Amino acid sequence: MIRLSVRDPEFAARFDTLVNARREADANVSFDVLAILSRVRAEGDTALRDYTQAFDGHDLEASGWRIDTAECRAALEGLAPDLRRALELAAERITAYHEKQRPADRDEVDATGVRIGARWRPVEAAGLYVPGGRAAYPSSLLMNAIPAKVAGVERLAMVTPTPRGEVNPLVLAAAALVGIEEIWRVGGAQAIGALAYGTRRIAPVDVIVGPGNAWVAEAKRQLYGVVGIDMVAGPSEILVVADADNDPDWIAADLLSQAEHDPTSQSILFTDDAAFADAVAAAVDRQIATLATGATARASWDANGAIILVERLIDAAPLIDRLAPEHLELAVTDPEPLFAAVRHAGSIFLGRHTPEAIGDYLGGPNHVLPTGRRARFSSGLSVLDFMKRTSFLGCSAPSLEKLGPAAVALAEAEGLPAHARSVALRLGQ
Amino acid sequence: MIRLSVRDPEFAARFDTLVNARREADANVSFDVLAILSRVRAEGDTALRDYTQAFDGHDLEASGWRIDTAECRAALEGLAPDLRRALELAAERITAYHEKQRPADRDEVDATGVRIGARWRPVEAAGLYVPGGRAAYPSSLLMNAIPAKVAGVERLAMVTPTPRGEVNPLVLAAAALVGIEEIWRVGGAQAIGALAYGTRRIAPVDVIVGPGNAWVAEAKRQLYGVVGIDMVAGPSEILVVADADNDPDWIAADLLSQAEHDPTSQSILFTDDAAFADAVAAAVDRQIATLATGATARASWDANGAIILVERLIDAAPLIDRLAPEHLELAVTDPEPLFAAVRHAGSIFLGRHTPEAIGDYLGGPNHVLPTGRRARFSSGLSVLDFMKRTSFLGCSAPSLEKLGPAAVALAEAEGLPAHARSVALRLGQ
Repeated sequence: MIRLSVRDPEFAARFDTLVNARREADANVSFDVLAILSRVRAEGDTALRDYTQAFDGHDLEASGWRIDTAECRAALEGLAPDLRRALELAAERITAYHEKQRPADRDEVDATGVRIGARWRPVEAAGLYVPGGRAAYPSSLLMNAIPAKVAGVERLAMVTPTPRGEVNPLVLAAAALVGIEEIWRVGGAQAIGALAYGTRRIAPVDVIVGPGNAWVAEAKRQLYGVVGIDMVAGPSEILVVADADNDPDWIAADLLSQAEHDPTSQSILFTDDAAFADAVAAAVDRQIATLATGATARASWDANGAIILVERLIDAAPLIDRLAPEHLELAVTDPEPLFAAVRHAGSIFLGRHTPEAIGDYLGGPNHVLPTGRRARFSSGLSVLDFMKRTSFLGCSAPSLEKLGPAAVALAEAEGLPAHARSVALRLGQ
Repeated sequence: MIRLSVRDPEFAARFDTLVNARREADANVSFDVLAILSRVRAEGDTALRDYTQAFDGHDLEASGWRIDTAECRAALEGLAPDLRRALELAAERITAYHEKQRPADRDEVDATGVRIGARWRPVEAAGLYVPGGRAAYPSSLLMNAIPAKVAGVERLAMVTPTPRGEVNPLVLAAAALVGIEEIWRVGGAQAIGALAYGTRRIAPVDVIVGPGNAWVAEAKRQLYGVVGIDMVAGPSEILVVADADNDPDWIAADLLSQAEHDPTSQSILFTDDAAFADAVAAAVDRQIATLATGATARASWDANGAIILVERLIDAAPLIDRLAPEHLELAVTDPEPLFAAVRHAGSIFLGRHTPEAIGDYLGGPNHVLPTGRRARFSSGLSVLDFMKRTSFLGCSAPSLEKLGPAAVALAEAEGLPAHARSVALRLGQ
């Protein structure tokens, strides 16, 4: 953890270093991924079977290519009642929030008499990657699948590795709750390749979403354009702005809720009170000792944690914008001034009673958010990621009379005579 | 040009071949681009100067790094009056259409008492690539720059190569009309690298848009995630559905308006009348002979053109969806049934009096559209490409009491104890 103060003579340089630090491993996986994708494209299911044997240690012909929906329903039935209710509440709230994201169509006639508009339609098929092992979260399945369902996507194909055949019952329960019926026991770059190119067994999809390791992320990046993808995801981040009126333990827990994800995660506190900063730092150390995820949290906090002292909390706004954090928590009595002043953040949590974890599970907004300063230009996952817009235009003969001559002039100036002719002929020229 | 009929016994296979034909050159440029981007990142302006000397044949220190806005204003003043009026009409119509794309913010309190919403903000800076030479179109500059302006982007940085120092006055005039004040005389992958990473002279941007050659496209693809980009663009396409009541010459001109762009462009006619198909094919041959762009159009039509005979025009809908064309023209008296039946197209042109070229210049909707079957999952350029959404959530103590226990249950089930603690502490647990 580093501590900075805007009063430090070298604050600007040290803050620059923090902003520009790259926490993403420079995993040199692009050649491996290229080879895997080429082989999946050429050999299809044979390649999937071989890679699954090699990486996940089971034979798909023996263990079964798909996970049966009956197995998912059984997992849902087998959940403890409070957990099932929690999952259902999450699904309801996420659905309600995303339903209001459905875009409106436009269909107008303008003053020139031209019919003009745009309409949105869902993609036909979406692929959903769900990691195996530690990072397999049912909440993540809900956050990725529900926007696709709300968009109206007809086919949702889930892929997930089952190392040595193991599955995660919580994830299967979430799949049953959302109504996913097509689940393939394949993972890694090979699963992404299968979804993008299609194989004999697995029909291709139009959009691929969902978190994964470096191979999965690189496969999505390489296939961007062949299919739509959600985004390039990096390690998660939280930035908490807190005054001295907070309980240091609450704020420490908030910082640790990101730190416990991964050693590359980042937690940053902005405060205007040095004693409060000390108290939070002490609380972090105290809490880590009692966390089952303490080793990960410790590694993250030591390597990437930061506490930054500012004169007044509002002064943090331009610094926050440079960091463009994935999650921004405004733990103050009146968050409005900072809320209005900050421009770049993936999601903002307002006030002392909105820990970021509420948003991870069941606030409603999506928890798939831009990381690594990408909130400067990108947004969280939404219904729009599963839809596309078709614009349209309809001229009558009279409205074409009005617009046509300008189009002819521009086409001729650009040296495109067939463009000009296609209009001129209709003008009787 | 190939001719197919749904009555051909091998129609399905031949149509599959047409759908899956890749017209994009497999330009093996990724290593070149990787090297150029690395050098621009490391050496900045020195690399730009060297590459510009090597590729464009002029020394930026001698010829000037920037094109002066006075030069742009002079180009605008120097336009023929009808051309200037045409450019202004185009800019007005494009602006009016895109202004209605501005997304609405949301800010509500739900039944649980949780404040929940999302707000949109523009990115701070956008980079606009404008090709030099043949493909430098003022219409393209308007289509790329106006959505950024409408979004509220404060800084628009244009880059354009000026081979041997040459500039295109029409493009400069369009830049003056839109109000672009920062124009750099650099092009190629090196210009994209400069916009993404920034150099001493050129500040970095958040989003890069605009057409370019294979190097430019690959540079954007490689930098996707470092910055936002518009899309992966391929050769342009038109698909015309026409009945026998059309003038074959009008339809031939429409097909040629895409064919004249590039030998890799594609023009496809669907019709239900064999004699009309013959008449259009003859008109295409006749018109090519008189076009200044005839050689290009000939190459495109011969290699990639197609005429497909269907029983009834409505039967074309599922075939159109498989092709997911960039431009779809419905040259029939009542386009509504096909308009309703087709799902995948970048932009649709309704009726006999809406040649696609109107949309290229001044219909209003954007002419930057998905190609290569990408209309299955992506949309034309819009104001949204220059904005990003921040979701937000605000719980009061009472609303956290309602949601908190479910979040704790889910966090514990996922093995994330700090997530659970950040909520539990606030519940007094």
